[in-house]
Amino acid sequence: MTDFADTPEPPYFAVIFTSLRTAPDPEYDETARLMLDLAAAQPGFLGAESARNQDGFGITVSYWTSEAAIAAWREQADHQVARREGRALWYQGFRVRACRVERAYGFDTAEERQT
Amino acid sequence: MTDFADTPEPPYFAVIFTSLRTAPDPEYDETARLMLDLAAAQPGFLGAESARNQDGFGITVSYWTSEAAIAAWREQADHQVARREGRALWYQGFRVRACRVERAYGFDTAEERQT
Repeated sequence: MTDFADTPEPPYFAVIFTSLRTAPDPEYDETARLMLDLAAAQPGFLGAESARNQDGFGITVSYWTSEAAIAAWREQADHQVARREGRALWYQGFRVRACRVERAYGFDTAEERQT
Repeated sequence: MTDFADTPEPPYFAVIFTSLRTAPDPEYDETARLMLDLAAAQPGFLGAESARNQDGFGITVSYWTSEAAIAAWREQADHQVARREGRALWYQGFRVRACRVERAYGFDTAEERQT
């Protein structure tokens, strides 16, 4: 998901999740992928963007149609399990900030992205 | 700035800047550092968090006391110059989303961060 989320005109909602990972763990990567699949299947999911520095500091922003959609996602059982495991095993620390997106703009070159 | 921003209790404001870089450029790194110094000197700046994947996709979130503080930052002349250069030289694309942070929570291990 190392790409832009295709979000609609504001207003919509965002969850900014910043985290500092412990040592790399293949099980983390698998669970993170599963969590994204689950989020994408939730009502109200608009997309997500994610980046992580080589030292383990990362930011994932997920976008949602409403605060109710975010709350439903938080309550989602599998997600709660992953959050518990994450707290114990995968993160030295994290911050969660829930926001209302008020304005947005962007820019793209004419060229297709080179991957 | 690969660390958590020390933000106050909500509400406050955030600018989520997601970008896809072109090829690495030392001048970009220098200008990015200068821009952060300038932001930090602006009234209303609360902090920033930043991460970038090795393929060039990155997220920087800056936090502000008010929408007026964000607007003043946008108008800051040096910043405008950097934005113009960035559009032409440094980014294949970017998105800017201005948000109001409504809720926040976090977690830290007892251990100090190992750097």
